[in-house]
Amino acid sequence: MKLWQKENTITSEKIEKFTVGKDREMDLHLAEFDVLGNLAHATMLETIGLLTAEDLTALKAELKVIYAEIEKGEFVIEDGVEDVHSQVELLLTRKLGDTGKKIHSGRSRNDQVLVDMKLYTRARLFEVVQATEKLFNVLVQKSEEHKNDLLPGYTHLQIAMPSSFGLWFGAYAEGLIDDIIQLNAAYRLANRNPLGSGAGYGSSFPLNRTLTTELLGFEGMHHNVVYAQMSRGRTEQAALTAISSLAATVSRLAMDVCLYNSQNFGFIILPDDLTTGSSIMPHKKNPDVAELLRAKTNRMKALPMEVTMVLSNLPSGYHRDMQLLKEILMPAFDEILDCLDIAAFMLEHLKVKQNLLDDPKYDLLFSVERVNELVISGVPFRDAYKQVGAEIGDGSYVAPRELKHSHEGSIGNLQSAEIRERMQREIAVFGYDKVQAALQKLISE
Amino acid sequence: MKLWQKENTITSEKIEKFTVGKDREMDLHLAEFDVLGNLAHATMLETIGLLTAEDLTALKAELKVIYAEIEKGEFVIEDGVEDVHSQVELLLTRKLGDTGKKIHSGRSRNDQVLVDMKLYTRARLFEVVQATEKLFNVLVQKSEEHKNDLLPGYTHLQIAMPSSFGLWFGAYAEGLIDDIIQLNAAYRLANRNPLGSGAGYGSSFPLNRTLTTELLGFEGMHHNVVYAQMSRGRTEQAALTAISSLAATVSRLAMDVCLYNSQNFGFIILPDDLTTGSSIMPHKKNPDVAELLRAKTNRMKALPMEVTMVLSNLPSGYHRDMQLLKEILMPAFDEILDCLDIAAFMLEHLKVKQNLLDDPKYDLLFSVERVNELVISGVPFRDAYKQVGAEIGDGSYVAPRELKHSHEGSIGNLQSAEIRERMQREIAVFGYDKVQAALQKLISE
Amino acid sequence: MKLWQKENTITSEKIEKFTVGKDREMDLHLAEFDVLGNLAHATMLETIGLLTAEDLTALKAELKVIYAEIEKGEFVIEDGVEDVHSQVELLLTRKLGDTGKKIHSGRSRNDQVLVDMKLYTRARLFEVVQATEKLFNVLVQKSEEHKNDLLPGYTHLQIAMPSSFGLWFGAYAEGLIDDIIQLNAAYRLANRNPLGSGAGYGSSFPLNRTLTTELLGFEGMHHNVVYAQMSRGRTEQAALTAISSLAATVSRLAMDVCLYNSQNFGFIILPDDLTTGSSIMPHKKNPDVAELLRAKTNRMKALPMEVTMVLSNLPSGYHRDMQLLKEILMPAFDEILDCLDIAAFMLEHLKVKQNLLDDPKYDLLFSVERVNELVISGVPFRDAYKQVGAEIGDGSYVAPRELKHSHEGSIGNLQSAEIRERMQREIAVFGYDKVQAALQKLISE
Amino acid sequence: MKLWQKENTITSEKIEKFTVGKDREMDLHLAEFDVLGNLAHATMLETIGLLTAEDLTALKAELKVIYAEIEKGEFVIEDGVEDVHSQVELLLTRKLGDTGKKIHSGRSRNDQVLVDMKLYTRARLFEVVQATEKLFNVLVQKSEEHKNDLLPGYTHLQIAMPSSFGLWFGAYAEGLIDDIIQLNAAYRLANRNPLGSGAGYGSSFPLNRTLTTELLGFEGMHHNVVYAQMSRGRTEQAALTAISSLAATVSRLAMDVCLYNSQNFGFIILPDDLTTGSSIMPHKKNPDVAELLRAKTNRMKALPMEVTMVLSNLPSGYHRDMQLLKEILMPAFDEILDCLDIAAFMLEHLKVKQNLLDDPKYDLLFSVERVNELVISGVPFRDAYKQVGAEIGDGSYVAPRELKHSHEGSIGNLQSAEIRERMQREIAVFGYDKVQAALQKLISE
Repeated sequence: MKLWQKENTITSEKIEKFTVGKDREMDLHLAEFDVLGNLAHATMLETIGLLTAEDLTALKAELKVIYAEIEKGEFVIEDGVEDVHSQVELLLTRKLGDTGKKIHSGRSRNDQVLVDMKLYTRARLFEVVQATEKLFNVLVQKSEEHKNDLLPGYTHLQIAMPSSFGLWFGAYAEGLIDDIIQLNAAYRLANRNPLGSGAGYGSSFPLNRTLTTELLGFEGMHHNVVYAQMSRGRTEQAALTAISSLAATVSRLAMDVCLYNSQNFGFIILPDDLTTGSSIMPHKKNPDVAELLRAKTNRMKALPMEVTMVLSNLPSGYHRDMQLLKEILMPAFDEILDCLDIAAFMLEHLKVKQNLLDDPKYDLLFSVERVNELVISGVPFRDAYKQVGAEIGDGSYVAPRELKHSHEGSIGNLQSAEIRERMQREIAVFGYDKVQAALQKLISE
Repeated sequence: MKLWQKENTITSEKIEKFTVGKDREMDLHLAEFDVLGNLAHATMLETIGLLTAEDLTALKAELKVIYAEIEKGEFVIEDGVEDVHSQVELLLTRKLGDTGKKIHSGRSRNDQVLVDMKLYTRARLFEVVQATEKLFNVLVQKSEEHKNDLLPGYTHLQIAMPSSFGLWFGAYAEGLIDDIIQLNAAYRLANRNPLGSGAGYGSSFPLNRTLTTELLGFEGMHHNVVYAQMSRGRTEQAALTAISSLAATVSRLAMDVCLYNSQNFGFIILPDDLTTGSSIMPHKKNPDVAELLRAKTNRMKALPMEVTMVLSNLPSGYHRDMQLLKEILMPAFDEILDCLDIAAFMLEHLKVKQNLLDDPKYDLLFSVERVNELVISGVPFRDAYKQVGAEIGDGSYVAPRELKHSHEGSIGNLQSAEIRERMQREIAVFGYDKVQAALQKLISE
Repeated sequence: MKLWQKENTITSEKIEKFTVGKDREMDLHLAEFDVLGNLAHATMLETIGLLTAEDLTALKAELKVIYAEIEKGEFVIEDGVEDVHSQVELLLTRKLGDTGKKIHSGRSRNDQVLVDMKLYTRARLFEVVQATEKLFNVLVQKSEEHKNDLLPGYTHLQIAMPSSFGLWFGAYAEGLIDDIIQLNAAYRLANRNPLGSGAGYGSSFPLNRTLTTELLGFEGMHHNVVYAQMSRGRTEQAALTAISSLAATVSRLAMDVCLYNSQNFGFIILPDDLTTGSSIMPHKKNPDVAELLRAKTNRMKALPMEVTMVLSNLPSGYHRDMQLLKEILMPAFDEILDCLDIAAFMLEHLKVKQNLLDDPKYDLLFSVERVNELVISGVPFRDAYKQVGAEIGDGSYVAPRELKHSHEGSIGNLQSAEIRERMQREIAVFGYDKVQAALQKLISE
Repeated sequence: MKLWQKENTITSEKIEKFTVGKDREMDLHLAEFDVLGNLAHATMLETIGLLTAEDLTALKAELKVIYAEIEKGEFVIEDGVEDVHSQVELLLTRKLGDTGKKIHSGRSRNDQVLVDMKLYTRARLFEVVQATEKLFNVLVQKSEEHKNDLLPGYTHLQIAMPSSFGLWFGAYAEGLIDDIIQLNAAYRLANRNPLGSGAGYGSSFPLNRTLTTELLGFEGMHHNVVYAQMSRGRTEQAALTAISSLAATVSRLAMDVCLYNSQNFGFIILPDDLTTGSSIMPHKKNPDVAELLRAKTNRMKALPMEVTMVLSNLPSGYHRDMQLLKEILMPAFDEILDCLDIAAFMLEHLKVKQNLLDDPKYDLLFSVERVNELVISGVPFRDAYKQVGAEIGDGSYVAPRELKHSHEGSIGNLQSAEIRERMQREIAVFGYDKVQAALQKLISE
């Protein structure tokens, strides 16, 4: 206070702005989870004698009032209040006096942030799962719809073998299943109870962490209190890694769309609403939506690095650096949900061109079929391969355009049912209905 | 050939060197898996009539000879042979003539590399799991051994609250469980059968992919053949992401060791073999091993980025770029195994200092205990907090050195049994015994 | 329009929101540069006969009106107007009718964005240079002020040899000079004229690009029009690379501050305004500002990766993906300027502890001095080294506390004047006064 | 020694292997620079009386013998010798006894590594400059050669406006100039003398650092000794950042080549030696060399991150972590030189297709020309734009195929001379001839 008398107010504001950053804005999204954490903690405190039954009744009633306000979008963090945890405590104390203060027993700020972030991350990861499922459904449906629409298949960007829109859409559908598996690994890290770990060294109160684990619907607890704190950052990292994997799937899809939309490929037609013209070229229909989808999802692939940058070589124990993780993680959920939504929308409205392979330039796609014909007629593979090469050279090659692919996952046998069934199984692994039931019980009892 | 006559030989060599790169060296590690893939493919080909029973018998016998050579370390990729797949085919053809060639029916080079990489990655990921378990065991044992050796707990690198070596070692042990979960997500991606996907567009032969899936002990297949190819890169990415997560755990541990070994902390003693002196300062014992462990594991955190760099914005379909992924992935397994081994070794031999908290500079660690004493005696938390602050200010504060932490995961209740049990459960999820049984059956029948 | 009739409005809004993103917000910062680019282009068009002298007079007058509005903070991008370029053109056309439209001759949207971004980046990079110089001045002043305050020097986090606060502050000062060199490399890339490159393929109008290069004070032009477009992304990349290098310098400084503020080091005292207490530990003074400074600057080190992610494997030619670069680059300038400001502030108010080396635990710092004493008295280095090691072992070692370091850059000879002089020379390289003179002339003539 | 008696030897080997890593292999590349550093240091020691004239004469003679051995490729680091610095000292001591030992006065290992790395990095960066110039020359020559060969220009991967191979080759040429600027920023960081900084805290000997700066041809010295040490990592970072920027230029070029080689574009022809066939498709000519070039250069873009990972949040002062930087930096030079060489080779032998724009699908490229025709005939731009759009719609559009682009950097005016001249100027900035002269003098006097 004494160091810079005159500049004092400006200083305080400057420092305040620097340290608070976007934290109050971020914290609004944590409000509902803060109430849930408080409900579980209070319920537990009563069982170990640190709250009376009356205290608990009063606190639960008041917390439900706050929860209702949050749901109605009426909750605010008042000016001068540092964060969501202080705001909730303030509201309780205003109504209940000393009883409101008691809820802090056996806790610390770190512990509050941690629980809120776990609950928040768990909920939002499942939102991502649901949006991924929606995109998956569009892809599988499109795959079935266009299973007979052939498409040139490329390797090395060279015309290779016949493919189909059925295979192309279906490939991205199946890819999303692997993203769900990555999301689950992150979800499980979020689905662990840190409540009771205090500032990272536990409490001398006889807290019952098993009870709060159950009340909040967690799969289990972070047992070791030092590790509970250490899971901060890791949880964010795992979530962003899974999101970035999903983003990579979408970005690759967007790249294909941009390429297939080029006149030199000309495989698909984008509706007018998804393209824009040029300020100087009257003939252009640019795939801006697909390009921005590609750019946004590509950019998201750097998110895990941001977390790594913040965490690298920090010794164990909490550091204020962790606060910044909120700003990295929380907007990423909105961004990926937005991208998944736009991707689904784009695919729903995209049209595929038919009879693409009638163009003679794609005759070469069938060279392997010609080789296989010869193999089946008894010519050894390596000789058949040479013969077809010679036919192509001397112009005698005729493309055998009838396709007979029948094995699992090939053009003639997309296995959409199996793929759908796998997706359902992987989503069931989350057990999110149990989580919802626990939280519902907590807020309604 | 005609373009640069005189420089021809030099050119060929230069291009050869550039395109082959480290591929032959990498491929040696794939040999055993290539044989396994061939065994499964041949067995299947016979069931669909593309090999006779005699062909199959001959091929299996010969493949087992090659497998035995590999196990004895006698397998080589001969000069002029491009890769492991060609070498195996060459050996078969030398012995069996045209029968050896037939094994290529319904396959392509891409398909061979893919299967080999899946089998390789699956096996090595489980090696990492086992090495992680070994480090975990050391940590849990050390945690139990030192559960009564107190350690200052820090937040913001400021003296905060009492901790213990039991908590510190135990925290890293529990952290490894979350790494196992990440490893499992990668493992599941590796544990999918791509065999039959050919160059990414399947085959017109009526391959039975369900059969090869079973023979190779895979959890299931990549159904869609386009996706099977697209999983290249993704599998490597997932494996390296899991490895980099594990590396991050080890690097943080190493940072703690370096800091705790500084005279200004002085919490641990490293044995002479793990320290080095200075060329100019006769008093130095530098923690070089811990520092290099930190550096190596930190560096590994960039590995997923390398894969991302190679894959970004590649349209769907195979590209030769994928070859480079081998050089990124394969040495990473050796590196992480090495780091896990050294970490376990370092921890086994590290000694902790006792009675650290007797130093009066750590009196402040107990301020929260003092607050809690007052709370229990009836003083409201916020008032107790103020009173202790005042006691510290006027010198009347006496540290209450007796600790009573008893809740789950706290100093007095480390829950090592629960943590051990969780680790066992997560490792069981891999079901690696079933994989081993399948491969054993394949190679021995 | 016909595809999704009912959902039409929602669709348009959704797509609009997705494609516009933060672009309008970003564009506001480009307004002044857009006017400057227009002034230069219009002036040139008149010289090649595409504008009449009257047109030019009218356009210049109107552009200056707009510029004045921007300076007063009154410029807005109206609802329904896509970007800053359209807004400026709209204002011109409102006032001047067809004359306003003519300014677009020989340009394209790409060309406008490019010029604006170059001018913007150039200006902001120099702002960063100036803020860096301010931090540099604080560091050099502190270095001089504390040149006699000794500090333990560490290697491997082990007590090593005597250092001083003079050396410590001075080291970071000198480091900033190298950041200025990196900034200059980026600045030179920004300081090239792309005007006239159109959509990346130039124009059939006989534009005089040499003239606009001069009018806008550029060092030179991007000659090749395809390259001018290709410089998009590269310029941002270079700027963010330089910013991230600077951020790394600040983050390392912040790490030192956090460590030196730990009670286990205890080398510095942070004023109350730069520390915060704990919600549960009444004795804490946490260095939150330094920690957040560390976290924010560390996070910035991922910025170049974000650009890389967006650009990787995009074929040559403009893609809408480039739009996203604005959101990556532009806030980074505010962030680094904020961090530089807080760093300077923190250092100004930070106090150093004196007589640190009187603590006997630092006696070993002087072992090299003891070795050197012996060397000077004629004992060979290796023997002296052994003798001092023995003295330390048997307790006969006496620390020779008088320091005689006199060579360039050592404790006794900080060379602050040389370091200051170098900084001045590197800043002069930018030649920013010439840039300002050119722009001043353009806007005032 | 006593801790693990029986396992002792295995242990030592394991730890040895872990700590030495690839260091001895890397160090071989430093040998010549170590000798140069020793020559400069010895020369200086004599001037301050720490070596006699006879000592110096003997040392110089012996160092030159070693230098000659290195040049002949006969220098080895003997078994049991830790690094290059010890090997050189050993050779000197073998021959000169105590005189050999004296050369260590006023130095430390850190100081030796630092000087060697600076000299090494400086030399290799200039090698990269020269290889870049070679690629530049190929590009400019190709650009001139094909200035009349038109190429479709794309934006958004959509057919946009006429371009030419002249522009395309020329764009990459000009891009390399900006890479040279980045290389120079790194070079200047490498071109600073750290000699005399000891372990990072200087020496109490009255070293003359100005003299060694001059002898080694450095632009100047790192004044502050703490900063000299802190420049470790930064120098590597800057070098790798510049290399990764250059790699990005090459990777984009390779992406274009892969795309243009696709049958759907078909703009270029790669010679047989640069393509490979397929194991199953007899018609394929895959651009494997271009793909691997793309992959390798893309992967290099992660290199700066590796350094960042190692350095993040390390407090000031040397840490053994720095050793790992050698393994990151040193192979990168070989890799980029290899890629530059192959890129030049590929371009030299690549053929372009002619008369590409005769294909009617490219008619739309000329729509802007048609607009401009109308504008010149007096139609306002916005109206002309509409009219041409209508012509395209109703089929009345006729492409005006005659191009009149004449402005600086456009199709008709490539400005190769200006671009060449700029490159020469930027290379001259390095002043490498002065460096060579200084080193030549040092080694020969």
